[in-house]
Amino acid sequence: MGGDLGPGITVPATLQVAQAHPHLRFVLVGEEHSLTSLLPANPPSGISFEYAADTVGMGDKPAYALRHKRNSSMWRALEMVQSGRAQACVSAGNTGALMAMGKFLLNTFPGIDRPAICKPVPTEKGHSYLLDLGANIDCRAEQLLQFAVMGAVLAAAVDDKPGPSIGLLNIGAEAIKGGESIRLAAALLHRHPGLNYTGYVEGDGIYRGDVDVVVCDGFAGNVALKVSEGVALLLADRVRKIFTANWYSRLVGQLAQPLLRKWHTQFDPARYNGASFLGLQGIVIKSHGGADRRSFQFALETARDQVERSIPTLINDQVAALQAADNGY
Amino acid sequence: MGGDLGPGITVPATLQVAQAHPHLRFVLVGEEHSLTSLLPANPPSGISFEYAADTVGMGDKPAYALRHKRNSSMWRALEMVQSGRAQACVSAGNTGALMAMGKFLLNTFPGIDRPAICKPVPTEKGHSYLLDLGANIDCRAEQLLQFAVMGAVLAAAVDDKPGPSIGLLNIGAEAIKGGESIRLAAALLHRHPGLNYTGYVEGDGIYRGDVDVVVCDGFAGNVALKVSEGVALLLADRVRKIFTANWYSRLVGQLAQPLLRKWHTQFDPARYNGASFLGLQGIVIKSHGGADRRSFQFALETARDQVERSIPTLINDQVAALQAADNGY
Repeated sequence: MGGDLGPGITVPATLQVAQAHPHLRFVLVGEEHSLTSLLPANPPSGISFEYAADTVGMGDKPAYALRHKRNSSMWRALEMVQSGRAQACVSAGNTGALMAMGKFLLNTFPGIDRPAICKPVPTEKGHSYLLDLGANIDCRAEQLLQFAVMGAVLAAAVDDKPGPSIGLLNIGAEAIKGGESIRLAAALLHRHPGLNYTGYVEGDGIYRGDVDVVVCDGFAGNVALKVSEGVALLLADRVRKIFTANWYSRLVGQLAQPLLRKWHTQFDPARYNGASFLGLQGIVIKSHGGADRRSFQFALETARDQVERSIPTLINDQVAALQAADNGY
Repeated sequence: MGGDLGPGITVPATLQVAQAHPHLRFVLVGEEHSLTSLLPANPPSGISFEYAADTVGMGDKPAYALRHKRNSSMWRALEMVQSGRAQACVSAGNTGALMAMGKFLLNTFPGIDRPAICKPVPTEKGHSYLLDLGANIDCRAEQLLQFAVMGAVLAAAVDDKPGPSIGLLNIGAEAIKGGESIRLAAALLHRHPGLNYTGYVEGDGIYRGDVDVVVCDGFAGNVALKVSEGVALLLADRVRKIFTANWYSRLVGQLAQPLLRKWHTQFDPARYNGASFLGLQGIVIKSHGGADRRSFQFALETARDQVERSIPTLINDQVAALQAADNGY
């Protein structure tokens, strides 16, 4: 039910992915009429329904949603993951509410204080994983260490990349360096030989692809992500304007269109849609609220990928191994 | 003497600006031979020298430079501003050392706890000012308020824009909002009717040009700035690659070259070179260490502009007015 356009996006996207992957089963959770009116008379056999009368509003505060929205589609979908009826929950709804309900219903694994929001971002070398993206404002060093472990598990499993490199987001080598918890986290990361920690990375280093996993607190991560989207939009918009300014530029623009489309696709936010709530005892994927059908499909594919690779189990194993190593000191 | 290429950049850039503005006087501060060997036999009359035997290294820690580099070109140049022999100091050197020496020699105005680093960034609507960019990691609400006042003075004076709008950088409306000091700063900003505070702004809002002045702590500001540079470089690099991939794209690339050059110029970091250390009792402009000649000229022009508009005096007046208003409560 979530997102700016609700089932009008999520239902057709699910239909598409269901057709592409006949072995998968999808449960559409939400208001009966909103869902059924959007489906063909004979939907693919993999699609079923779970009706929920209520929805979480985009403006609902997380604490309010947690207390008063237990008949909502969001709650019901997460409950299905909790009970094992579903292996993953994908939502385009209210991020704060999804996180609050996710923590309440699914819990974090032992050794993980709080979940982190993680997304891949395009880089010169492919993509890197950035976390946390806004679930945690102030992070202790131990939390940053947990984020590093979780991000490394994701990068290793999803990209088949053993020993992915990990960097801590910090500011200029010239200027005064970042705060206490970052320095402490660097020391913790150095102590763990199992983690391929390579040091601090600066904002521009993210996009050079200096490391596979960039760890930061949720405030810095959210700023980095939103700023990136803003700059990409601005530059794309200016390209459009320059190629339509006069008859010559329009002509060249016609010729350049397939190339510019290719360019645009390379950093298209749609391709990178689907943020993972890592650390929960279950898979929860948050789609961008403004996602279109194609973009929501990427979020569904992200969920499928994480189910197939058992990401939560891998995270639990790694965090347990880290704690065992710490107790061995 | 500073920057990746030292006097090889700064001296020719100064020559160029001196020729364009015959009424300005420039004092080149540094090692005698390094400077004189780069000048023509008859340099413009506006150019003179101040020899300094020592230099601050790019790797010198601020505290070390402050204690041991008092014969450096950086120290001497700032001393000239302190004594009134110069109205501004422009450096491409070590940011941390420049800030430490600047604070020591020039002091901040009463009512300003610490200086902030401020730069214009390109937006959909022109440009906006972003501060702090790395001088202050953790900021109290009062400091953020001071930054807002200083940024607004700069935007109003340099862009002839009375009552520039001010926003506080924060993260998603959906997710959990930023920390205590940001919320307190918002309350402080609301209380001052003289300031055109419009509320929170998110990372992508910076580049939409939502506000004229974006206020944040130095960690978030530095991440935002570096991430922006990284994304712009990545996208420009991919344009280059796409327009050279095969014979068709090379052909279209030839036709599109003037358009792409125009595009590139619009967000060219060179045009936005020159960060201001606001709050000091004197003008200090920091050029990017990797600046080329053209780019360093922009830093010199920034300094000229701020001298002509008496930015430090305006800042002092505004901060004094703010304090008077506060005492009137």
